[in-house]
Amino acid sequence: MEAARKAEEAGRHIIHMEVGQPGTGAPRGAIEALKGALDADALGYTVSLGLPALRRRIAQLYGERHNLDLNPERVIVTSGSSGGFLLTFTALFDTGDRVGIGAPGYPSYRQILRALDLVPVDIETAVKNRYQPVPADLAGLDLAGLMVASPANPTGTMLGHDAMAGLIGATQEAGASFISDEIYHGLEYEAKAVTALEISDDVYVINSFSKYYSMTGWRIGWMVVPEDHVRVLERISQNMFICAPHASQVAALAAMECDEELQANLRVYAENRRLMLEGLPKAGFTRIAPPDGAFYVYADVSDLTSDSRAFAAEILEKAGVAVTPGLDFDPVRGATTLRFSYARSTADIAEGLDRLARFMAARG
Amino acid sequence: MEAARKAEEAGRHIIHMEVGQPGTGAPRGAIEALKGALDADALGYTVSLGLPALRRRIAQLYGERHNLDLNPERVIVTSGSSGGFLLTFTALFDTGDRVGIGAPGYPSYRQILRALDLVPVDIETAVKNRYQPVPADLAGLDLAGLMVASPANPTGTMLGHDAMAGLIGATQEAGASFISDEIYHGLEYEAKAVTALEISDDVYVINSFSKYYSMTGWRIGWMVVPEDHVRVLERISQNMFICAPHASQVAALAAMECDEELQANLRVYAENRRLMLEGLPKAGFTRIAPPDGAFYVYADVSDLTSDSRAFAAEILEKAGVAVTPGLDFDPVRGATTLRFSYARSTADIAEGLDRLARFMAARG
Repeated sequence: MEAARKAEEAGRHIIHMEVGQPGTGAPRGAIEALKGALDADALGYTVSLGLPALRRRIAQLYGERHNLDLNPERVIVTSGSSGGFLLTFTALFDTGDRVGIGAPGYPSYRQILRALDLVPVDIETAVKNRYQPVPADLAGLDLAGLMVASPANPTGTMLGHDAMAGLIGATQEAGASFISDEIYHGLEYEAKAVTALEISDDVYVINSFSKYYSMTGWRIGWMVVPEDHVRVLERISQNMFICAPHASQVAALAAMECDEELQANLRVYAENRRLMLEGLPKAGFTRIAPPDGAFYVYADVSDLTSDSRAFAAEILEKAGVAVTPGLDFDPVRGATTLRFSYARSTADIAEGLDRLARFMAARG
Repeated sequence: MEAARKAEEAGRHIIHMEVGQPGTGAPRGAIEALKGALDADALGYTVSLGLPALRRRIAQLYGERHNLDLNPERVIVTSGSSGGFLLTFTALFDTGDRVGIGAPGYPSYRQILRALDLVPVDIETAVKNRYQPVPADLAGLDLAGLMVASPANPTGTMLGHDAMAGLIGATQEAGASFISDEIYHGLEYEAKAVTALEISDDVYVINSFSKYYSMTGWRIGWMVVPEDHVRVLERISQNMFICAPHASQVAALAAMECDEELQANLRVYAENRRLMLEGLPKAGFTRIAPPDGAFYVYADVSDLTSDSRAFAAEILEKAGVAVTPGLDFDPVRGATTLRFSYARSTADIAEGLDRLARFMAARG
């Protein structure tokens, strides 16, 4: 991202396939609701668990999306999924505990765990398992917890119902806590994303308004936890955060009634994804993970490079397209992978694919 | 607070002297600036250290308030002072490190330290030292850090220049880090609050838009750290928070030009404080800490009770005034202290003082 910024400062036009956020802002209804609240309310601290109306509305979402009857008391509004990670790790683990995370995976998992003196344990996932952990991976790892993401960043792959159930079962059998990062739920294309709550109530689910609801900068998300964990989390949350941003809570509540606009965003991603799945292989990026959801395509480029950082720099320099080297997500195998994001406009994606095709043709 | 809420639900009228936040909202200019941004900007993630314009404006504040020439690169925008505490403790300390905090003090210091597997070390402060630690207190404590607050919660007392310099010197001599919580700066009445940055660059300063700028629910604050710590904090902040809420950053920047409205708020607190200093002793609360700043009066009620929780409950029940028992701030001596907040309207404060006077007269 820094290299892309410098290239732009030098006057170059860059297509951004490195971004991890929508180009769109919060939906119109969220903005209008907040404007109303700005005039009507002092927007002081909320209660630590979040506005009761927002907790109820989030519970209702699980009815709408997954046909689940969720007790709103189990919903905890957080300062983004980042806040959810901090709360989860603090509530569940003690110094030195080992927590399994899939590689490749979101780099901050590892960093937050380390900052809390916990031990991230990379689980090297296989393409044949859609880059997701499987029960056999847990053997001998002595984990206090397992964290999965579906749809995942950087791969976009999902865990189906059986895969999720198998992992939850194996984790619980090992006496470890199961944490499901569902931040990309809602951004799915051919199959529906499965929530861990369909399988078990004894899980921690982390979600956010950043992606489907297009509200990254608002720092607002939620968790669903077992009923008997709520009080502990309320206390930690009160001390560590006091509350999630009040204005963001107001906007988020209204965003949940903006499906028309959000589905239009989703149709843009779907079209972008179609272009990517057609254009990337044509350009020469043929080994790609099953892109079930989110707005990423993860490509194995071991036939093209053994240094993804240098390759990404070359693509930026010669093609004017910013992409993310896999090393950010997988400290070992990431040297031979790239992540392409299709979160921006369809025109940008089409132009980016043209540039990539020309670059690869010239590279020979 | 919970008891006060229940009493109100039961139809009683309660005067709120237990609150830790202004009754006012963000200043008008902040609201209008945000409304403009809501229409013009997608408000996605900002860079992790915060909007450059906000960092520059905060640096400028140290010129205006303290005649300091502060490098804006040293300013880190945080998700409230809560975010500042998490970043500070994570950056400076390792598991098991001992961190000194004054008793009485803000209860979340202790809880956040514990949640991070650090060891809070209560320093019992003396009235003759304005309920603030003094250098002699540090002897033999083997601290990795010392945290002070000036003006302090719950006492409102401040550290003067010499007291602050003495503490910083003793802390640095002991090889420990000095952390100054300056969240109540700007809410001061007879003398100016001293920032630790007037004494040394080798300190961590934590501040917030919650109190003087009247923006509690916005979860926006800042830190000033030594120049060579910025990169480490940037990395931790990126992983733990990504960024502070974007909308709050926009509002905060505009709030810094709203001194007219904020000074009007301050005049209300000043009048409230005058009423409190007159009315509390008249009512029978005679042993009060020097109320230099913030919007609190801390009273020693050992002549009236040995159970501050029961006494606060009695005051709520019989006088209809909510106050905070000292045990929230000092696990030992807090059994004989109360905190009175004067953050609400002057009419409320006057009515509360009347009620307290009648209650104490009837109690005899």
